[in-house]
Amino acid sequence: MKIVLDAFGGDNAPRATVVGGVQALRGKSGFSLILTGKAETIYSILKENAYDDVADRIDVIDCDEVITNDESPTVAIRKKTNSSLAVGLKALKERPDVEAFVSAGSTGAVLTGATLKVGRIKGISRPALAPVLPTVTGGDVMLLDCGANADCKPVNLVHFAVMGYNYMKAVYGLDNPRVALLSNGTEDHKGCQLTQETFKILKNIPSINFVGNMEARDILSGNYDVVVCDGFSGNICLKSLEGMSVATFSLIKQGVNNSFKSKVGAMLMKNVFKDIKKKMDYNSNGGAVFLGVEGVIYKAHGASTENTIKNTVLQAVHAVESNLVETIKNSLSTVDLENLILTE
Amino acid sequence: MKIVLDAFGGDNAPRATVVGGVQALRGKSGFSLILTGKAETIYSILKENAYDDVADRIDVIDCDEVITNDESPTVAIRKKTNSSLAVGLKALKERPDVEAFVSAGSTGAVLTGATLKVGRIKGISRPALAPVLPTVTGGDVMLLDCGANADCKPVNLVHFAVMGYNYMKAVYGLDNPRVALLSNGTEDHKGCQLTQETFKILKNIPSINFVGNMEARDILSGNYDVVVCDGFSGNICLKSLEGMSVATFSLIKQGVNNSFKSKVGAMLMKNVFKDIKKKMDYNSNGGAVFLGVEGVIYKAHGASTENTIKNTVLQAVHAVESNLVETIKNSLSTVDLENLILTE
Repeated sequence: MKIVLDAFGGDNAPRATVVGGVQALRGKSGFSLILTGKAETIYSILKENAYDDVADRIDVIDCDEVITNDESPTVAIRKKTNSSLAVGLKALKERPDVEAFVSAGSTGAVLTGATLKVGRIKGISRPALAPVLPTVTGGDVMLLDCGANADCKPVNLVHFAVMGYNYMKAVYGLDNPRVALLSNGTEDHKGCQLTQETFKILKNIPSINFVGNMEARDILSGNYDVVVCDGFSGNICLKSLEGMSVATFSLIKQGVNNSFKSKVGAMLMKNVFKDIKKKMDYNSNGGAVFLGVEGVIYKAHGASTENTIKNTVLQAVHAVESNLVETIKNSLSTVDLENLILTE
Repeated sequence: MKIVLDAFGGDNAPRATVVGGVQALRGKSGFSLILTGKAETIYSILKENAYDDVADRIDVIDCDEVITNDESPTVAIRKKTNSSLAVGLKALKERPDVEAFVSAGSTGAVLTGATLKVGRIKGISRPALAPVLPTVTGGDVMLLDCGANADCKPVNLVHFAVMGYNYMKAVYGLDNPRVALLSNGTEDHKGCQLTQETFKILKNIPSINFVGNMEARDILSGNYDVVVCDGFSGNICLKSLEGMSVATFSLIKQGVNNSFKSKVGAMLMKNVFKDIKKKMDYNSNGGAVFLGVEGVIYKAHGASTENTIKNTVLQAVHAVESNLVETIKNSLSTVDLENLILTE
């Protein structure tokens, strides 16, 4: 199995990407990596990291352009055909031996590039960016879409639900994932026009375990495995969670600095805080999968560290092993979506 | 100044509402309260609380129906004309001496009742439910709409922006409140169709201080005074913040229970945690104003305690003193909304 890693994508690239890639190879056997980007720089970082033990599992495709966050994704993907991102996606599309692509580069460029160069799975109206968040009960919840589609139609959300259900089943090994619709109340009639129409369709799909509407306050409760929403709402949900987390720890810090007693308390609780931050920082624990395209594609956070890259590469390997793309394709045949949506 | 208080609205009513009302009267002079609900029960609670010192500032309108959360708001408002909620709103509408209404009852019924019975301010397309949240810098931020309108058009969001700006100026005394649009990125071009269209209008309104798009992660940063969104997105933002707060404290508790050292630490940090919970629990600190109707209306949380009711009544008094309704009316004349929206 070959995974292509965009070595020049991300704020800490190429060092964090190259070193993270080497760590992933050391962490698991059975796959090899193709790094895209300036070969000279990549080899120099590899040498610094005494990569001899994994050298035969690393290949490099030399290319000298880099797509940054400041560029228009559509323009950049079209013009910078020799960028580490575009070259990587091209390899995934054209080479039968390449089975996944990982990048910490510009989200817009990864999504645009993936859709344009790798292409949608036939039958999927819109691919979705889908991070998996840790919950308080120790489980995980997939939230999709989280940013690929700001404006959605019911058919898009229905596809997200089917893809999310089958992803959590195949890749996370859940028996019968609970799929909920993000809404402004739990009652069946709650929601905006989009979610109300989507609700009516989802409740008529027997091949997914649709459990109804849910409220954003319960996203981390562990009561749901897949939460479906448009990309705008998903972004707001995700960023609000981050905002409150940052605010809470900032207030704890403020409070601790106000008294000696609580300073001592905070020292004694140091490990608790560290564990929580580590657990809840889903951005560092791995990447978000881009579901609905003709290949396994993971987008890691722009600020990815070596460890994030390592985890994301291993996620991609696991997704390939789980036959992700075939699973999504097969899932479509279990649902008569066309008919369900037309008859609503 | 007379404020009408729905004595039978809320999970802890009528005890919390009646006692909270008495506490508000004791906390500030210059206004009196009209309590709506079963007079016998109200007087019995008042007597238990030795209310002689404020007896001449309390009036009761006897009515025997109560609207619950389980009822359809529209049906309940139409049929239960003798409910504490409907009678209270009627008093606000019809009696010139009544200047504000406070309820911890069903949100749907309060909003529907306010719109139907009290009426919109001429020129405001949709009233908005607008809580004010504490920020990490010690300031406050108004988020609107937070649940009155699940589906919005740009004109609604523009009205929210104008109302929010003028509320924070008049009632919170801010000099030139910073108004932002909740979006999925800070760049001007980011957003869904609704926010992109709204953005174009807002940037052309010189009488409000529009600072552009903002991300949900910065809602509590203290960088904004008013954040504008549709009611669906607002609900998701608010509930996600709550969800992360609950999750964080739940994880802290789990972590603390795992070691003796951190248990001691948590004891020493008790006050810090208490302060943060108190500070961030905006639901207990007061109510959300319903902006855009022909009267001062505050909705307190369903689970309101005596203290919440006290704070919400005092908020209402302050809003009346700040000439809230006149302020909103005047604000419309400073903006050629009709023209702006038509020319976009």
